[in-house]
Amino acid sequence: MSVLRLGYVHARVTDMAEAKRHYGDTMGLYPMLEEQGRVYYKGWDEYDHHSLVLEEGGVGLVKLGYKVADPADIELYEKRAEQFGCLVERMSTGENREVGDGIRIVLPSDHVVELYHEMTLVGTEVGTHNPDVFPRHLVGVGAPRIDHALITAEDPGLADRFFREVLGFYATERVATSLDDDAQIIGSWLSTSNTPHDIAVIGGPNGKLHHFAFQLADWSDIKRAGGLFAMDDVPVDVGPTQHGITRGETIYYFDPSGNRNEVFSGGYLAFPDRPTVTWTVDELAKGIFYIGRELNDRFTSVLT
Amino acid sequence: MSVLRLGYVHARVTDMAEAKRHYGDTMGLYPMLEEQGRVYYKGWDEYDHHSLVLEEGGVGLVKLGYKVADPADIELYEKRAEQFGCLVERMSTGENREVGDGIRIVLPSDHVVELYHEMTLVGTEVGTHNPDVFPRHLVGVGAPRIDHALITAEDPGLADRFFREVLGFYATERVATSLDDDAQIIGSWLSTSNTPHDIAVIGGPNGKLHHFAFQLADWSDIKRAGGLFAMDDVPVDVGPTQHGITRGETIYYFDPSGNRNEVFSGGYLAFPDRPTVTWTVDELAKGIFYIGRELNDRFTSVLT
Amino acid sequence: MSVLRLGYVHARVTDMAEAKRHYGDTMGLYPMLEEQGRVYYKGWDEYDHHSLVLEEGGVGLVKLGYKVADPADIELYEKRAEQFGCLVERMSTGENREVGDGIRIVLPSDHVVELYHEMTLVGTEVGTHNPDVFPRHLVGVGAPRIDHALITAEDPGLADRFFREVLGFYATERVATSLDDDAQIIGSWLSTSNTPHDIAVIGGPNGKLHHFAFQLADWSDIKRAGGLFAMDDVPVDVGPTQHGITRGETIYYFDPSGNRNEVFSGGYLAFPDRPTVTWTVDELAKGIFYIGRELNDRFTSVLT
Amino acid sequence: MSVLRLGYVHARVTDMAEAKRHYGDTMGLYPMLEEQGRVYYKGWDEYDHHSLVLEEGGVGLVKLGYKVADPADIELYEKRAEQFGCLVERMSTGENREVGDGIRIVLPSDHVVELYHEMTLVGTEVGTHNPDVFPRHLVGVGAPRIDHALITAEDPGLADRFFREVLGFYATERVATSLDDDAQIIGSWLSTSNTPHDIAVIGGPNGKLHHFAFQLADWSDIKRAGGLFAMDDVPVDVGPTQHGITRGETIYYFDPSGNRNEVFSGGYLAFPDRPTVTWTVDELAKGIFYIGRELNDRFTSVLT
Repeated sequence: MSVLRLGYVHARVTDMAEAKRHYGDTMGLYPMLEEQGRVYYKGWDEYDHHSLVLEEGGVGLVKLGYKVADPADIELYEKRAEQFGCLVERMSTGENREVGDGIRIVLPSDHVVELYHEMTLVGTEVGTHNPDVFPRHLVGVGAPRIDHALITAEDPGLADRFFREVLGFYATERVATSLDDDAQIIGSWLSTSNTPHDIAVIGGPNGKLHHFAFQLADWSDIKRAGGLFAMDDVPVDVGPTQHGITRGETIYYFDPSGNRNEVFSGGYLAFPDRPTVTWTVDELAKGIFYIGRELNDRFTSVLT
Repeated sequence: MSVLRLGYVHARVTDMAEAKRHYGDTMGLYPMLEEQGRVYYKGWDEYDHHSLVLEEGGVGLVKLGYKVADPADIELYEKRAEQFGCLVERMSTGENREVGDGIRIVLPSDHVVELYHEMTLVGTEVGTHNPDVFPRHLVGVGAPRIDHALITAEDPGLADRFFREVLGFYATERVATSLDDDAQIIGSWLSTSNTPHDIAVIGGPNGKLHHFAFQLADWSDIKRAGGLFAMDDVPVDVGPTQHGITRGETIYYFDPSGNRNEVFSGGYLAFPDRPTVTWTVDELAKGIFYIGRELNDRFTSVLT
Repeated sequence: MSVLRLGYVHARVTDMAEAKRHYGDTMGLYPMLEEQGRVYYKGWDEYDHHSLVLEEGGVGLVKLGYKVADPADIELYEKRAEQFGCLVERMSTGENREVGDGIRIVLPSDHVVELYHEMTLVGTEVGTHNPDVFPRHLVGVGAPRIDHALITAEDPGLADRFFREVLGFYATERVATSLDDDAQIIGSWLSTSNTPHDIAVIGGPNGKLHHFAFQLADWSDIKRAGGLFAMDDVPVDVGPTQHGITRGETIYYFDPSGNRNEVFSGGYLAFPDRPTVTWTVDELAKGIFYIGRELNDRFTSVLT
Repeated sequence: MSVLRLGYVHARVTDMAEAKRHYGDTMGLYPMLEEQGRVYYKGWDEYDHHSLVLEEGGVGLVKLGYKVADPADIELYEKRAEQFGCLVERMSTGENREVGDGIRIVLPSDHVVELYHEMTLVGTEVGTHNPDVFPRHLVGVGAPRIDHALITAEDPGLADRFFREVLGFYATERVATSLDDDAQIIGSWLSTSNTPHDIAVIGGPNGKLHHFAFQLADWSDIKRAGGLFAMDDVPVDVGPTQHGITRGETIYYFDPSGNRNEVFSGGYLAFPDRPTVTWTVDELAKGIFYIGRELNDRFTSVLT
């Protein structure tokens, strides 16, 4: 595996002042740079320059950046993506602030994914010499890092194939029309690490975002985040609860522009040799929200 | 304060076999006695003979039993209840299995409350000599004890007065039409201990039960209970979440007969000199479900 | 029960500047008043004016204040304490800042206990109208309230009798030389509420303090406190761990003057009709530190 | 990275009956096979046939097995190990029960490490179709999986180099004599995944085991394990506490033969591009036990 992780989410917000209150004051992300109408944030446990880029004007996803371990692999991904039929272009250092050379791929689902190997290393507040286990003065939720995104695609099976065949991800879990081998894939959770998902795709319109997620330490931090959401008038969609899929603990909520966020903790340690779990449609609600086993309309229909 | 706690809930179930699977296998209560169509249960951390009595035929509450610290006070409660206009009758040892003498009061809201001082002491599995902190082989949720009940009354303000003036409870929190002194009470949470509620009353039809609750150790046990509910097909109403009122952590769910149960943990330490908290109707959803700030129809309408 | 709770701990510290860093910045108590060399603190969930008084000069306990529910009872306690052979004197409003009339009792163990009914009500940051579940900007550990103290006495059995017979406390747990009725009491945990202890006494020199404790919400907050102790160079004595006695979760640590503090969470709900638990000396280490079952010299010998 | 994880620990125990009580009844591992004096166990969340092999006679480590993602890489590891100066031999299917072909390397520190690609896939109790989040009837601690081992080496810097240069691990944290580049490595934590360590090496005699560890879900499960250790008379070495190094939550304890085990949860998500953390000797106690900042003699001297 050469893709390391989701390196950054670049998203649109309707009102930057409100967005800064949300991502800065409530989520406790570190504001790293504000330039040309864009604001760059990172979580306290991230070493690279940023993991979230906000841009005013509209909602939804501009693009996702995945960091690649070995720069030599980028050419391989380029070839594979072209063979897969994707539009691919090279991007050069500076096109993205603090990000090095790489490629930009337009997925069959119209989402834009960038691959890069370099981002300016800025380190963390606790440092690397006898570091404390968390920064002494975190703000609000104090999210340590960005974790994954869930996007929608008209053909989720094709998107699943893209991430596996082009980027070398492996499927940890799937929702399918049946348990048969030729069943249609309705949703796919894919990993390029030992977390249960670095990307997930479910059926829906092309190019849309269901949510992106911040990882928290555990179920207690999920509850604490929920309390802060109440205090700061952050609209909650669902949770706290536990997923069947990934086993992760979760609250879904909205940023002031209506982009859905998630705080996520736990989940099993995934490995490429772990058999892919299959959920059938009749148990989908249990797969998504294990405890309550109910989906609300908002959760299944609101996208940005 | 002479009323110690909610000693027992006596409830009706439509199907005893299913009820036994729920309260025995899922909730992990200890079956203590089965006799004349009634099943008696206790939690692992309760010393008295039982805290839950189930009776086949219908749903809802037969009665609630509150244990009194000083038997001499029972006469006082009898007098006060009669002065309050309640129907009161004496009950004698043996009318309730393993329960001593006492009185039976019909509340203005038609609920039946029994006061007693004696119940057969049976002890717990961990014992009282160098005891372990929990029994080594708990079943399912392994609920330690019954905690409180929430009942509905056409005049919740009158029920609130009954519990304060007759039984000496104090109001920890209230929902009122406004913050004015002459505001109408829509809901009242009342304590006779240091827990935030030993009884709660909200507006609704007389004689009905909203839920009764088991206390769990903490937020982690709430999540674990939720997992077991999913495995055992226990319908969940709301949760896991945190209450604004009481600050307790919670899942609401239904027994197989449709009686609502709650698993409850946390909550502040209440004292009679703590000022009563008032919630206004516009913030009621936040008071009930602090994190999500939404009430569902089922939660506000299903009663047994 | 008419004694409500431990209302205040009045302790000596060797260096007030350091003490303020500890109790204010690390523990996150609210500084309420600084006057005549004394600093008054309260936890965020306490309504009365203060729960901790610090006085420069030495270490250890000046006195403990217990709040009484009914002022009429104070005279009764006075009589009982005199009959018990204690030195008792009346104290009047203003002798203790923000505290009303009451009595001061010198225990057989030379500790000073004050009983009072009134302290200026100042409320909390979250207020009593649609309150948040915790203050949005807590400092450090953010301790909600003071919980209990553990003192040493040459005759712990006599101290146990004092708290039961004079003040109406009940013993939740004891350490005894054997399980026989005439066994000697080596330690006693006593409650005047539904918490497992409002005071505890173990064998040792008269007049000494083993520790006083702050209550935290749960086991997760215990860990978080431990992290802050590491960051702020607070010496830890033992923990995190769980007690067998009380089942509470705990870290013992020292303030900069050497007074032992505890953060404590959990523990069962105690009732006067719950049988007293007895621990025998051979299992004492398990009773104190259930998980590790070892006592260190420092824990058993350092007193202030 | 082609080494996936620690696949199995093969250890010696002095008494198999006692070992079975410990690993089966207390730890809740699944006994998979008993044959020729060896007992094979797996955790509930492991898909391969076993992750722990016990063999009667003595104490300490027989060998560690690491699973390799791509069988083609094994030859590469063989070459590199030989170039590093290690004794390497081929092992064939069946030499280890249910394990395929591979190589056996004797480390410079005399530990034996086996690399393999195949182990019989047996799956888990929850299955891969609409699986529950944990098995309904776990026994004891119910450990989900084996996580890592800590071994001692006369030259820990050399062992660190072996795991990095031969097996492609990366160092997440180190203890060094100073922060200088030419400082001596006293301990090294190395990962071949996104967990903070799949192996760790500290200075000490060659060929010895400090501990091997089971991963638990979170801090609450660590406490629950501690309670079970008390009930089942499992000697605890240190904990519960949190590490500075890895940030993991932990209890160290001993199996009946004296082999040290650990239950471990949490810890950050590690990546190869995360800068290596360096701890200096003066802060070593804080690195190992962040909260208490003290090392006991037993922890630093008992090896098997």
